[in-house]
Amino acid sequence: MDIARIAGNLQKNLEALHEYTATPGAGTTRLPFTKEARSAANRIRAMMTEAGLTVREDEAGNIIGLLEGAEPALPALVIGSHFDTVTNDGDFDGLAGIMTGIEIARLAREKGADLRRNLIVVAFCDEEGMRFGTGYFGSKAILGQVSQEDLHRYKDKDGVSVYAAMKDYNLVPEDLPKAAWDLSSIKAFIETHIEQGPVLYQSRNEIGLVECIVGIQRYIVTVQGRSDHAGTTPMDMRIDAVEAAAKAISKIPDWAREKGEGTVATTGFIKVLPGGMNIVAEEVQFSVDIRSSNNANIEEIAANIRTELDKACARNGASYRMDNKLTITPVQLNEAMLAKLERFCKDRGYSYRRMLSGAGHDALAIGQVLDTVMVFVPSKDGRSHCPVEWTEYRDIAKAVVLVYDLILDMQ
Amino acid sequence: MDIARIAGNLQKNLEALHEYTATPGAGTTRLPFTKEARSAANRIRAMMTEAGLTVREDEAGNIIGLLEGAEPALPALVIGSHFDTVTNDGDFDGLAGIMTGIEIARLAREKGADLRRNLIVVAFCDEEGMRFGTGYFGSKAILGQVSQEDLHRYKDKDGVSVYAAMKDYNLVPEDLPKAAWDLSSIKAFIETHIEQGPVLYQSRNEIGLVECIVGIQRYIVTVQGRSDHAGTTPMDMRIDAVEAAAKAISKIPDWAREKGEGTVATTGFIKVLPGGMNIVAEEVQFSVDIRSSNNANIEEIAANIRTELDKACARNGASYRMDNKLTITPVQLNEAMLAKLERFCKDRGYSYRRMLSGAGHDALAIGQVLDTVMVFVPSKDGRSHCPVEWTEYRDIAKAVVLVYDLILDMQ
Repeated sequence: MDIARIAGNLQKNLEALHEYTATPGAGTTRLPFTKEARSAANRIRAMMTEAGLTVREDEAGNIIGLLEGAEPALPALVIGSHFDTVTNDGDFDGLAGIMTGIEIARLAREKGADLRRNLIVVAFCDEEGMRFGTGYFGSKAILGQVSQEDLHRYKDKDGVSVYAAMKDYNLVPEDLPKAAWDLSSIKAFIETHIEQGPVLYQSRNEIGLVECIVGIQRYIVTVQGRSDHAGTTPMDMRIDAVEAAAKAISKIPDWAREKGEGTVATTGFIKVLPGGMNIVAEEVQFSVDIRSSNNANIEEIAANIRTELDKACARNGASYRMDNKLTITPVQLNEAMLAKLERFCKDRGYSYRRMLSGAGHDALAIGQVLDTVMVFVPSKDGRSHCPVEWTEYRDIAKAVVLVYDLILDMQ
Repeated sequence: MDIARIAGNLQKNLEALHEYTATPGAGTTRLPFTKEARSAANRIRAMMTEAGLTVREDEAGNIIGLLEGAEPALPALVIGSHFDTVTNDGDFDGLAGIMTGIEIARLAREKGADLRRNLIVVAFCDEEGMRFGTGYFGSKAILGQVSQEDLHRYKDKDGVSVYAAMKDYNLVPEDLPKAAWDLSSIKAFIETHIEQGPVLYQSRNEIGLVECIVGIQRYIVTVQGRSDHAGTTPMDMRIDAVEAAAKAISKIPDWAREKGEGTVATTGFIKVLPGGMNIVAEEVQFSVDIRSSNNANIEEIAANIRTELDKACARNGASYRMDNKLTITPVQLNEAMLAKLERFCKDRGYSYRRMLSGAGHDALAIGQVLDTVMVFVPSKDGRSHCPVEWTEYRDIAKAVVLVYDLILDMQ
């Protein structure tokens, strides 16, 4: 395999998409159903066509390229990822997986590979959820999991609904159900993605074989105290919301460490009201994001937080509520495909490690209903969702080769 | 003594000042050197004159009323408090102490009290520091502690310096040094003030005899971590600024409780950057306000915070700095005057307790250089710095009687 040539193709195509951003000079910002998304979709269609795929846009705004196999009635193999971004993103998040699919199709055509099954390359619309606060829109649409009601319920910061945005993008929202696939027509889904974390880069591995996409529970905890003068209110007469909140927040990371199994827990948001240096806090809001490959760990940490807050509030008279904002159960990826990919890594001499995905992906939605596997490539310094996001093209090219091996093996 | 009549006078005068606010319908907002301050100052002058005092405005904007004694060369007795407020304040903070002085002067005249010493009643300008971020302006001016440089250095949120504001108020800033008193001409300073805390109200005492104004140290602590994806960054690869900060914040109140001696410690402000639910925090800023009657307690808690942050940062690689924003050492008030006031409370059957002041007052600045005492009156529910601030007029009237007793005793 000519890694250099594949890497060159990847570079050319990934760089070409860089211009479709709402924030020139400040990374890639390509929110769904915008003119940047439209321009990028058109360019991706052209790239797919040039690689030999027959291309269409579906009713959800996904771009779907088909390389027909000799026995098109057989369940197809699907490769894909998303072409939307977060605000001020890099050039690899999502796109790397789409370009991987395009290069595999190119390889198959150029090498005259004997494909019995259809090979489908998908560029999904709105995985990030940046605009409407949802996400997995394109992948859920092909699974038939997006309702008409959803299109009206979710709105962007300007109050534009998904429905209105789709119409503005020249889609027919009422036709969305037609985007759903007959799942029996699909054999497996394969997503290549940048890791977006430091594990591969720091361990100097070229390839990550993702065994599991972690489950997530996300909460906003609101602790209610009483606002008092920080000088004139003795310690035993105050209901300090910060104290009760901090007792819990300070222990959350330790609970995650104790669990192992890829468990992480994070408080990334804290808001204190009224927020004066000389005022005992009346209210504290804080976020908790808990992830693990083992759902029991997530449940136990959430329970620990409640226990700690119960204790702290009983002591000083504060109260709290803990609002669940997101619950995703862990998704185990397909072991048979992982074992094959592992063998191909060894055969080709690529350094690799089995690992977890701590972030959600289109494979999270699809992996719940179809045999799915993910291949990670290293993110330099673990950085992602920022303009300096970087992955070596040769590392993505190696993922192309591995997934090509897998496609051939699964005919 | 006719408590009801004194209370009636206090009510009339305190209610009369209510109209001089920049926020009608939302409490009293009377920032220094504003038109509300000017109107209030004029009204206070009229009240002092009506009570028999000879009135002048000094070069700092303080209103000074004199009741001349038989031997005016003797060191004088000074009673006072401030007439500025915080934003959306109540009607008692500061003013209660001024009106107390006016009623004492009235009593002395009406009763033909045999005063040898001059009695001076002062309405101080800008104790709160709300507009320019400083405070104790009027009291420091009479102590000769405000420099011309200070007048230019401190500015309000619109960029107006104290200097410019004074000119606009028809003062001559260059003349400020003339406001300084010959301290040998003053025997003692006495301030009556609402407690602004819950101690007297909850313990059902009418009078608080303040033994000490606590010392304060105030810090802004900045913990520097590293921003990472909360899902993709394993626990052992993250530098979580929230974790390091929370380890310290959660323990600060316990350290204060252990100390006793009126020690309180508060984190009322926390800011997390970038503040995303799914982003490990890059930076946390938080405030610490530590107060105690024993300065060693303050020093030890500040040291504990450093030790805890050293430990937490050593563990996860974060760093921190701790910026001192305010240092005030505790001020012991005059025990001889306190003992006299205590005796008068017993004689008159007023319930009282000796206590600390957890908040700063004009007496804090003055008490560092002159014999000073403070009398507290109860704040309903401990509330202050808000429109519902309330003190019973009869409680203030009892303070009038006690301080009148003290004035007579000290001739």
